[in-house]
Amino acid sequence: MFVLGIDPGLSRCGYGAVRQGRKPTAEAAGVLTTPAEMDRALRLAELQSDVRSLITELKPDVVAVERVLFQRNVATAMSVGQAVGVVLAESAAAGCDVVEYSPNEVKEAVAGWGGADKQEIAEMVRVLLGLGELLHPSDAADAVAVALCHLARMGPPAAASRRAEVGSGAR
Amino acid sequence: MFVLGIDPGLSRCGYGAVRQGRKPTAEAAGVLTTPAEMDRALRLAELQSDVRSLITELKPDVVAVERVLFQRNVATAMSVGQAVGVVLAESAAAGCDVVEYSPNEVKEAVAGWGGADKQEIAEMVRVLLGLGELLHPSDAADAVAVALCHLARMGPPAAASRRAEVGSGAR
Repeated sequence: MFVLGIDPGLSRCGYGAVRQGRKPTAEAAGVLTTPAEMDRALRLAELQSDVRSLITELKPDVVAVERVLFQRNVATAMSVGQAVGVVLAESAAAGCDVVEYSPNEVKEAVAGWGGADKQEIAEMVRVLLGLGELLHPSDAADAVAVALCHLARMGPPAAASRRAEVGSGAR
Repeated sequence: MFVLGIDPGLSRCGYGAVRQGRKPTAEAAGVLTTPAEMDRALRLAELQSDVRSLITELKPDVVAVERVLFQRNVATAMSVGQAVGVVLAESAAAGCDVVEYSPNEVKEAVAGWGGADKQEIAEMVRVLLGLGELLHPSDAADAVAVALCHLARMGPPAAASRRAEVGSGAR
């Protein structure tokens, strides 16, 4: 399974593409940015075009998007929500499966508890991918964490069937 | 000037295309709908495709979108915000000018005061377009009102310059 994780935003939209294997590998990670001084509709069109290019190039099976629930700032909440809309629409239009995870779900899956801070998530991403140093920028690491969350939720097919056997044997 | 007004939403997205003239004329009006039981990302992709077809067919100069500020329901606010993102991105990507108006701006421009109710707006839309009966459904009438708001804000070029002359003459 090949998962494109997205940490959505209009100013900075993190992405991280992770392939499942004995150890998950990140095949691409980075940030899509749009300039704050540009008109919002044009920024959304630029994000749309960038997301489309990314999906065309990487061909993920699944796009996993972090669900942004609350924002202190109403204007930020609005622009993030609009950016999420563009990402979800492009992903579904490209034929990818689309899933959303809350920040807590991502933290629990990657760091083992929902209260983990950004630094702990970045360190766990480093360990899970077997990297020598932390992924930069942090938006890219956050997006990889969303992809890893989806892989953890799905579980490796072999292990999942082993669990099922153990489960039925115990009954 | 040819303006496509949009009253955005994921379940129901009203549209109304109004051409400027001695009397404004509505060349198209209706509602784009997506089924509530469908996955949200697929609904957004369907809205994106429908908006793209509409813009390709009508070729508006300007897309005027009603700005949705507050929603009682957080889930509704999120899905409307995402729908707005898709509409803004598609409109800018198609090369249209994109403008947003608050509900109060639309009411003031069309009915003369910001407290006008839906019925008054629908009646003013009927009068301004010189129609024999109210436009249905109300989403379509609301979208036409957004387009009329933009035309009123811009003003006819000749009238605007006359106003400027009167203004300078009075000083």
